[in-house]
Amino acid sequence: MIKEFVTLSEERKVTLTCYLEETKGEFGAVDQRPAVLILPGGGYHFCSDREADPVAFPYLRAGYHAFILRYSLNDQAVWPRPLEDYEEAMSLIRANADIWHVVPDRIAVIGFSAGGHLAACAATMSRNRPNAAILGYAVIDGPCAKDYLASAPDVPSRVDGDTCPCFVFATRTDNLVPVENSVHLIDALCRNDIAFESHIYSNGGHGLTTGEEGLNYGAFSGRYPKWVEDSISWLGDMLGGVSPSAGLTPPRFGPKVNGDRDDTLGFECTFKHLAAFPEAMEAIHELLPGIEDSVPSAAVHVIRLCDRLWDYKGDPEKLKELEEKLRSIPNRL
Amino acid sequence: MIKEFVTLSEERKVTLTCYLEETKGEFGAVDQRPAVLILPGGGYHFCSDREADPVAFPYLRAGYHAFILRYSLNDQAVWPRPLEDYEEAMSLIRANADIWHVVPDRIAVIGFSAGGHLAACAATMSRNRPNAAILGYAVIDGPCAKDYLASAPDVPSRVDGDTCPCFVFATRTDNLVPVENSVHLIDALCRNDIAFESHIYSNGGHGLTTGEEGLNYGAFSGRYPKWVEDSISWLGDMLGGVSPSAGLTPPRFGPKVNGDRDDTLGFECTFKHLAAFPEAMEAIHELLPGIEDSVPSAAVHVIRLCDRLWDYKGDPEKLKELEEKLRSIPNRL
Amino acid sequence: MIKEFVTLSEERKVTLTCYLEETKGEFGAVDQRPAVLILPGGGYHFCSDREADPVAFPYLRAGYHAFILRYSLNDQAVWPRPLEDYEEAMSLIRANADIWHVVPDRIAVIGFSAGGHLAACAATMSRNRPNAAILGYAVIDGPCAKDYLASAPDVPSRVDGDTCPCFVFATRTDNLVPVENSVHLIDALCRNDIAFESHIYSNGGHGLTTGEEGLNYGAFSGRYPKWVEDSISWLGDMLGGVSPSAGLTPPRFGPKVNGDRDDTLGFECTFKHLAAFPEAMEAIHELLPGIEDSVPSAAVHVIRLCDRLWDYKGDPEKLKELEEKLRSIPNRL
Amino acid sequence: MIKEFVTLSEERKVTLTCYLEETKGEFGAVDQRPAVLILPGGGYHFCSDREADPVAFPYLRAGYHAFILRYSLNDQAVWPRPLEDYEEAMSLIRANADIWHVVPDRIAVIGFSAGGHLAACAATMSRNRPNAAILGYAVIDGPCAKDYLASAPDVPSRVDGDTCPCFVFATRTDNLVPVENSVHLIDALCRNDIAFESHIYSNGGHGLTTGEEGLNYGAFSGRYPKWVEDSISWLGDMLGGVSPSAGLTPPRFGPKVNGDRDDTLGFECTFKHLAAFPEAMEAIHELLPGIEDSVPSAAVHVIRLCDRLWDYKGDPEKLKELEEKLRSIPNRL
Repeated sequence: MIKEFVTLSEERKVTLTCYLEETKGEFGAVDQRPAVLILPGGGYHFCSDREADPVAFPYLRAGYHAFILRYSLNDQAVWPRPLEDYEEAMSLIRANADIWHVVPDRIAVIGFSAGGHLAACAATMSRNRPNAAILGYAVIDGPCAKDYLASAPDVPSRVDGDTCPCFVFATRTDNLVPVENSVHLIDALCRNDIAFESHIYSNGGHGLTTGEEGLNYGAFSGRYPKWVEDSISWLGDMLGGVSPSAGLTPPRFGPKVNGDRDDTLGFECTFKHLAAFPEAMEAIHELLPGIEDSVPSAAVHVIRLCDRLWDYKGDPEKLKELEEKLRSIPNRL
Repeated sequence: MIKEFVTLSEERKVTLTCYLEETKGEFGAVDQRPAVLILPGGGYHFCSDREADPVAFPYLRAGYHAFILRYSLNDQAVWPRPLEDYEEAMSLIRANADIWHVVPDRIAVIGFSAGGHLAACAATMSRNRPNAAILGYAVIDGPCAKDYLASAPDVPSRVDGDTCPCFVFATRTDNLVPVENSVHLIDALCRNDIAFESHIYSNGGHGLTTGEEGLNYGAFSGRYPKWVEDSISWLGDMLGGVSPSAGLTPPRFGPKVNGDRDDTLGFECTFKHLAAFPEAMEAIHELLPGIEDSVPSAAVHVIRLCDRLWDYKGDPEKLKELEEKLRSIPNRL
Repeated sequence: MIKEFVTLSEERKVTLTCYLEETKGEFGAVDQRPAVLILPGGGYHFCSDREADPVAFPYLRAGYHAFILRYSLNDQAVWPRPLEDYEEAMSLIRANADIWHVVPDRIAVIGFSAGGHLAACAATMSRNRPNAAILGYAVIDGPCAKDYLASAPDVPSRVDGDTCPCFVFATRTDNLVPVENSVHLIDALCRNDIAFESHIYSNGGHGLTTGEEGLNYGAFSGRYPKWVEDSISWLGDMLGGVSPSAGLTPPRFGPKVNGDRDDTLGFECTFKHLAAFPEAMEAIHELLPGIEDSVPSAAVHVIRLCDRLWDYKGDPEKLKELEEKLRSIPNRL
Repeated sequence: MIKEFVTLSEERKVTLTCYLEETKGEFGAVDQRPAVLILPGGGYHFCSDREADPVAFPYLRAGYHAFILRYSLNDQAVWPRPLEDYEEAMSLIRANADIWHVVPDRIAVIGFSAGGHLAACAATMSRNRPNAAILGYAVIDGPCAKDYLASAPDVPSRVDGDTCPCFVFATRTDNLVPVENSVHLIDALCRNDIAFESHIYSNGGHGLTTGEEGLNYGAFSGRYPKWVEDSISWLGDMLGGVSPSAGLTPPRFGPKVNGDRDDTLGFECTFKHLAAFPEAMEAIHELLPGIEDSVPSAAVHVIRLCDRLWDYKGDPEKLKELEEKLRSIPNRL
């Protein structure tokens, strides 16, 4: 492994620590790797060492390059300064993708507490979007953020259809950043059709980092440390992995939750979405009269046409024709 | 293991299947066991076998007695009929606690989908409250519930300080019961200071039950089946366990998230709560002048006095006196 | 789940408890299930309840039917009486495969301590062989067995090529049955080319059963309880599983460790085995001159021809011809 | 984390890569850390990169410093040259314990394949013994070792009472280094009362390293990758861990399997051992007449006196006296 250390701003002490794993040779077709960019917490007053290297190690183990950004703090953190530090770091990583052997579109940001606020801002407001965000006991709500940095923005109101998929975890008894922060974020992700996974563990104080023995004082629920391996498994669902025979492997699921944002209509569109396209509904009804009658009204925004095709007993060719017809209708009103 | 089968209503086909484990003898001081009462799902139209026995097994393994309630369905399920079935079952289990060797105050209800709606109603509206509730891809919101049973009530609006601790899990891409149901529930639990744990897995359709191979058709995130063991570990946090030397063992944490509902004030009260008691604040300020200045304003409802005592360097006796003083103040305004 | 209770011998109190899971219906193509036959321990003096039901539950959870045999004890256990009890039980289960919905060639025996001795005898000496054996802190060696039942046979000397695959676990500090028993068994399995998996955990006394809280007094290594889920995963490797769409699914690996016992020669035969067939070696050398020169001499009995074909750069057709040639040679000298 | 790189021999390309974690500061009382010294495999012909960094990461995550030794190879590896490289590395690490913040008596060696042979030699023959050894699909037997390095010694014959505790893992279907190697080692550890843990996974070829996706080509049993976390848990059993409040924490069990090697006799001595001391037996019989009658003859070397005291109903003071008496008898014949 190569360790590099890049100073992004001498004056504001903004630095990027790079842990770069080997590629090729004995690693076969693995000639580039996905990466994580870690944003430690510390209330925008410091960058915690407990949320830096100890977080990098498990992702390194899983085959990710790991970067740690120490961003602007205190007086020098007037917004959007920390976000600009992030932009610079992400932009540098992608610019160096070739020489650092990074897959430029498989880079996840990981942030904790105030660093989780910064990571969530990266996920929702940045120019250089991460491809996924892992947010640990993050500061999310505007009022809470302002307790630490007066100029810090609210996150939930900025979630939109371009937000990257998020992995959100916290402890319910967090005694510093109220768990509502995480709850409000996943609520916003729901409302905007963004892919996410969320784990709220019942007991434990603030700042438990990876939950490894040797990092923490107080007691916490035994499930807590599982967020680490679960987040790695989730990255595989969203972004894919690597293998020495195939190089990059595809994501198991990818971040799409339905087809409502595809270029054209299709079987993965929800009933709610299709309902706005009379031409589509006409074609659907011709083959599947009254199909939406079986769709509960409170679920029209999650049930996709394909979810109701499992008991179709008719001519498979007709079904293919319907799919082609839908694919021919541009997805705009 | 003894299997008993109790018919609660011949007419409405309401039945209670009882799987009762052995006690004493080779099990030493384990002369009674905690229990789970399982409410299978099925849209109030049927009770799914996939969410009955297969759910009982892991809790049996962990040393719980398991009961499965098949409740009123379809035309016979006009509310509150299913909840009355639950009341009858829970009341029977507690009445039989001695002969069935059940710990009467360590009984968790487990419900899935529509059964999750019923379990959530048990947690919030019943006379015979469960001691914990495990809610899988549950129908929670009124409008969603009404899609399945016109008379079914909304849950979040009924959450209050007497709601039992809840373990809430779902898949984000549930293609029948929108994940918002679970999100709205945990939001309500937050607002009411109720203990909970929550796991929302990124990918998977509706009705995955325990996630065991052999039960499911479609693909889902590899983390999904962990809810089972996690819920058992969580029950240990909330209710305690058993050991052959000690019999019942205490909960690792218990359901209390702070001291704001105790009979008297104390160190576990939040700053927000204490602020309403001038006599308390005066005593606190005498020993700890300005202590609340370091409490972020958005977190006054989660930070407890004890969370800020770690850097107290004064006379420990004084601290004890303060605690006694607070304990002498009745917790009512 | 149906519970049945069969008395095999009133006089000797030999009984078979049957826990039979549901099939078909909501379980789709799962119209039969694999099964486990549990043989509790107790030094041939009693059948431990701690190694009966608590062992059945996790396999039930994984979709197996579970049978518990309480076999002849004490004066009535003169060998081969207990083994005859096993024969009767296994033979009954297979005879009832249709009505109990059991897959007759996917039945594993699970035994503990003295029950592990009985299970190991079933694996090596019975007429009605199990398809796999799971052996927990088992009595294996003749002298050790005789401490509990004077007429009991030694196991390692009876291992041969017809022994079923074994999953062997124990604790290194077993304070009753020396861990050598398990070590001698896996040594014998090695020497006879039998598939096995083995886990010896560093710390823990005798008789820890599933390692569940509630079953044990003393302290033991935290890894110990993993044998349960690991044994289930191993059964999937050896025997396969079930799925509601496909019914029975194939084993991930199967019990064959090489092709030396197949009807004909083939690529999966070891170099040691092939060396005894001049006709085979001639054909091999024609295409792959000197291929065995790269095979370490201490490993000729584990390296198969196929293990050395990965750098073959010649005509793939020729390789196919070689395979056919080998397949045409009967595997007997 | 600091990365250092030490060249131990320019000529023979012997190098030590050091990954040193932070201590103190936010890590509290953790002012020194246990360490692992990794010996990659490669048949004494190369040092595999797949068994170097990827192995370091999980131990770093668990709070261990990690060192990787690239030792003498090929013509320059005439025995005991590689072992001398190990001696030099271990001796350097202990000499630098203060500046590198290493706990000098909590250093485990980890070796794979040929590196496992070297690690096993370190465990049994070195002057600078490791405190624990983790041995992956290791070359152990003399004949097998000689296939790779003509001068390499046999290990099992060198196991004695001074061998360090060992964690031994392999796959049963290893297609290069026969699994017998591992079996013969644990057999020797048994015979010499050395603490060990062992995991032999049923399926998988040679050289699977940590089992992480991205490192391997072929298929293997799903349990395989668990050796990593299990070995870390085992190190905690044998050597202890760290905590920010307590610094070093004691081992959960320690490497002693009985008291037969203690300075004096005691309750932890086995019946076999005590039998050679008439004075001890007399004292024991006085209080516990005939106690050894209940000890199975094949188990006298594993059952300790303390294992048979649980049903002693007499005067506890007398028991204490007996213990003192035994403690007064020097443990030598």
